[in-house]
Order: sequence, then C-alpha cells, then structure tokens
Amino acid sequence: MTRAGRRPGDSGTRDAILAAAKQAFGSKGYGATSVRAVARTAGVDPSLVLHFFGSKDGLFEAALELPLDPAAVVAGLLAGGVDGLGERVVRTFLGVWDATPGQGPMLAMLRSAVSHEDSAAMLRELLLRVILRPLALGAGADHPDLRAALLASQVVGLALTRYVLRFEPVASADADTLAPLLGPTLQRYLTGAL
Amino acid sequence: MTRAGRRPGDSGTRDAILAAAKQAFGSKGYGATSVRAVARTAGVDPSLVLHFFGSKDGLFEAALELPLDPAAVVAGLLAGGVDGLGERVVRTFLGVWDATPGQGPMLAMLRSAVSHEDSAAMLRELLLRVILRPLALGAGADHPDLRAALLASQVVGLALTRYVLRFEPVASADADTLAPLLGPTLQRYLTGAL
Repeated sequence: MTRAGRRPGDSGTRDAILAAAKQAFGSKGYGATSVRAVARTAGVDPSLVLHFFGSKDGLFEAALELPLDPAAVVAGLLAGGVDGLGERVVRTFLGVWDATPGQGPMLAMLRSAVSHEDSAAMLRELLLRVILRPLALGAGADHPDLRAALLASQVVGLALTRYVLRFEPVASADADTLAPLLGPTLQRYLTGAL
Repeated sequence: MTRAGRRPGDSGTRDAILAAAKQAFGSKGYGATSVRAVARTAGVDPSLVLHFFGSKDGLFEAALELPLDPAAVVAGLLAGGVDGLGERVVRTFLGVWDATPGQGPMLAMLRSAVSHEDSAAMLRELLLRVILRPLALGAGADHPDLRAALLASQVVGLALTRYVLRFEPVASADADTLAPLLGPTLQRYLTGAL
C-alpha cells in the first residue's frame, strides 16, 4: 500500500480522518462523500481510512458517533426470530433513547434533519440503509425499501411525539405500555402482506 | 356589553385581534394565552373577540391560518362511518398536504414545533385536541387521549418522512398506494383493542 504522510500508528491519525469525515458527510451528505476525498482532506492514503474504518459505511457510522453499533443491534433483534419482532424493535428503540439523557446526539440529528437537507440525507442513510432495510431483509420480507420507509414513518413519528413534541400519554408511558401498542404496527410493516 | 375603543364594525378590528392572538399564542403558547389578554393587547373588549371568533378555540384556529376547518374535516370523516375510517384519514391527510405547494404553513408549523416549545404546544393543541381526540371520540373509542397520541405518532411520522426527510418510496407514492398501507395502522389506533 502507498503511504501518505501519516502512518497507521500515528497518534491523531484516526481522529484526523474522523474529523474530515464528519465535515464531509455533514456538508455534502453521504452520497457525495468519497473515502478518497476524506483521505485527501485528512492528508492520508485512502487505504488508511479503510484500515481504521473498514468501509465507507463504517466511516459514516463512526462519524455519527452513535451510542451503539446499529449492525449489532439489527443482528440481535433478528436473532430472536420473526415472532414478536415488532415489539422487540419498540423495546430496543425506547431502551436506547430513554437511556440517553436528553436523547443526546440522536435527537440532535433528528432536529437537524428537519431543517438541513444534509442532515436529512445522513439520517436517511442511517435509518433506512443501515438499520431498517437490513431488518426487513433479515425478516425475510419482500419490498425491503418500502417496508423500511414505512417502519421509519412510525419510528421517527414515535421519537418526535415522545421526545420532542411530548404528546401525552405517549411521552410518559413506559416500554411495557408502548411495546404492545406500537409493536403490531411495526410487525405488519416488517412481515405483513403489503 | 362594555365597549372599548374599537367597535365590531371597525375596519381592521378583526385583524388587530388576530394579530394580537398570533403574537400571544406564538410566544406564550395555547394554555397561557387568554381571550382577555388578547383583547387587551388589541385594545378591544373581550366580548368583541368572542363576537368575531366564537371562543378561544376559534381564535386559536384562526391564528393558525389553516387551509381548512379542522372540525369540518373531522365531521366529514366520521360521517362515512367507522369502517375504513383509517384509510379515509390517510387519504384526507395526503389530500390536504399534497394540494398545498411546499406544504405551506402546515410544514412550517411542524418544522417550528421541532425547535420551539411554543410551536410544539400549538401543534399539540391543534393535532391532539382539535383533530385526533374528537376523531377517536367520534369513532366511539375508549382512551381517546392515548388513541390521539398514537394516531399523532403515525401521522406526524408520515408527514416528516414524506415531506421533510423524503424517505423513498413513501415520499413519491400516491394516496392509492399509501392508504391501504397506513390505513390499518390508523384504524387500529382509532378503534382496535388497546
């Protein structure tokens, strides 16, 4: 591999790549950002970006600074089988969001996505391509793109009404109350006949 | 009735009241705004506010500058009976939003509600108290507050994913495609066992 000025062991190299990625994804969106351009901004060889982050997707997810690995969450949900998957999605979703005081970077991303097209594009990539489409595919469903968008409409709506608009009684209800109410909706979007 | 400086026939009196109402609802929210305070700001007797707008609710709805009367929409939906109500709600919702280029003041309200607590409070009043709770009550349902909040979670999520985040294929789908997909969700939130 060709080496640029920085080497894998360089202190701060990973951080420099990550800073360049955040800047690029944030200003140009996911689609228009390339590993090559991020590497150039960070002053490293593209292979070094892949060394640290594995792929453009890995770089994207690292730039989002999520509190957990979405691919692992999806795998964990699917490991429980298709029965009751909708309810488990609700419980997992609420578990992650409720565990973060103020809902942190996730809520910031949602708020930002409402007014900035770039943030909307990043949320679209994360929610649809990284989380919900693999979830629908893993559940063995047809029409994964349509199912992912339908799932997103309910999940984003739940996040907005519970954490931002604070519509009661949904805002204060616990997961045991909400899972059986919203679970069947997600289950139908995941595995029902469309 | 006691008369202040302005009289019902005064040109601009209605506009002055409406301007005072928009300012008050926008800055203090629905709950903290009184007909009396709006009348004082507009320099009129409170009875004149009621003369023009009927009630605090009527004043609130006028201040929102909605493209149609929400009570009439709710009554029209309920007039068709409970069967298929969920699908008709989806069609009506999409009909109103799609007919407004750029989704106009409705989308502005949604965007504003995400970052301003006052706008969130106004959206809460409009969506839950004026539209969705009466819809659930009219459908003969128990737990109207919970049903209204669940309905809101799907309706707001649909608005956000379709018009703001533009998640495909939901963003470009027509009402005939979306109504059978989302209708059963709204039907269950309206009339299903909770």
